[in-house]
Amino acid sequence: MEIKIKIRGYHTDLYKHVNNARYLEFLEEARWQIVEEHMEITDFIQNKLSFFVVNINISYRSPARVNDVILIKTGLDKIGNKSAVFKQEIINTSTGKICIQADVTFVVADKTGKAIALKGEIKEAINRIPNVQ
Amino acid sequence: MEIKIKIRGYHTDLYKHVNNARYLEFLEEARWQIVEEHMEITDFIQNKLSFFVVNINISYRSPARVNDVILIKTGLDKIGNKSAVFKQEIINTSTGKICIQADVTFVVADKTGKAIALKGEIKEAINRIPNVQ
Amino acid sequence: MEIKIKIRGYHTDLYKHVNNARYLEFLEEARWQIVEEHMEITDFIQNKLSFFVVNINISYRSPARVNDVILIKTGLDKIGNKSAVFKQEIINTSTGKICIQADVTFVVADKTGKAIALKGEIKEAINRIPNVQ
Amino acid sequence: MEIKIKIRGYHTDLYKHVNNARYLEFLEEARWQIVEEHMEITDFIQNKLSFFVVNINISYRSPARVNDVILIKTGLDKIGNKSAVFKQEIINTSTGKICIQADVTFVVADKTGKAIALKGEIKEAINRIPNVQ
Repeated sequence: MEIKIKIRGYHTDLYKHVNNARYLEFLEEARWQIVEEHMEITDFIQNKLSFFVVNINISYRSPARVNDVILIKTGLDKIGNKSAVFKQEIINTSTGKICIQADVTFVVADKTGKAIALKGEIKEAINRIPNVQ
Repeated sequence: MEIKIKIRGYHTDLYKHVNNARYLEFLEEARWQIVEEHMEITDFIQNKLSFFVVNINISYRSPARVNDVILIKTGLDKIGNKSAVFKQEIINTSTGKICIQADVTFVVADKTGKAIALKGEIKEAINRIPNVQ
Repeated sequence: MEIKIKIRGYHTDLYKHVNNARYLEFLEEARWQIVEEHMEITDFIQNKLSFFVVNINISYRSPARVNDVILIKTGLDKIGNKSAVFKQEIINTSTGKICIQADVTFVVADKTGKAIALKGEIKEAINRIPNVQ
Repeated sequence: MEIKIKIRGYHTDLYKHVNNARYLEFLEEARWQIVEEHMEITDFIQNKLSFFVVNINISYRSPARVNDVILIKTGLDKIGNKSAVFKQEIINTSTGKICIQADVTFVVADKTGKAIALKGEIKEAINRIPNVQ
């Protein structure tokens, strides 16, 4: 799954680079699209279950600036009993360089906020998310 | 009611100025404090009623930059039957200039999202908010 | 000029509505696109001139929520000697209602931050921006 | 170094929790204060040198909600030849629980954006930053 965003003034900070916090919004945007495309299962649609991010390990490699077009790539890395990991990468198509790389670990929580076991229909749905190339 | 904020890198954009949208967060911050101090009435505490902003008219007069300290002033301007208006002003104490001036019109909505009449206890509480000097 | 955005979790606040400040980012996004399409003149490209917003008058009419798709319409309203006004409107295509309407007054500033007269090539470029329908 | 922030509506998202990206702004806020207090050396003041974050490893442990007061703790973890690490932790004083824990790795870059060796005056200044308790 790939999405493109053109960098605008409000994305950047005094260094004229996209701010560290803003990248997390870009990554969240891409994850919503992934879930939308691959997790069309009743319990998510009815909001009985939610994704919660429990860890983000993000490396900032090279900056993106106004007018640069970035490409966000997201894929499944691995799935465990209680948590799973997305790999996300943002490429600056204007420079050809990697902007950031991130491992995003998430759980699926029920209405009480408790992480549920990743098995059955939920596990199958997560496994339908393609790996990052 | 006055609060101070020191401008940091993440508040600013590529022009090295506080971004237009960020000022609205500063203004919202000041309004939460106003409501906290003057609207300690049961229906707000129990979330039966909420403030909803229906109009913001904001003039950007001079920029604030990293390390500048801004002062946010908020006061009641006027109160009508269904809506009321706050006057908010942000002073850049580092330059002595006015950064922005804003009129913020709000209603009080019930649980269904419908604006209620500003009378009785609610009107008295709003009227306890001091005017801007 | 019209752009569409799908509302995601990070756009919304505790009321489950798009936050007031976030709308200003949506409006800025649309203005960057307008300028990109219609203001391809050397002085902007070389950053000798910049747009500065001097006033935003925004009315919040009805909320947008997660998964709603909004449509941002932007057009020129009027052009004066020193400032000009965009009309911007956001429609919630999921409800058919208007989310917000805004008049955005801007000046064109030179490298020193001083507003220049809107005449000649600059005025012609601004006048190429279509009116809102 | 400790700072307190009261959570407001604009900090939270549709889950009524502080959004993942917003925590990075809180952490940046705390780092600006650390640098301000401990790095008063000429090269930073004259903007010849800047901090650049190269990695953030953040674990989200328990949510913060509107009206909660959070406490941000920041300290030096370790210092290497080219990079150093801050430990940052946010405590929700309203619940007594840890909201997030983060390791933030940074370099010091010169005007060209190149990371410089952490030695001499720079290293001494960084070493003046207290460890997290």
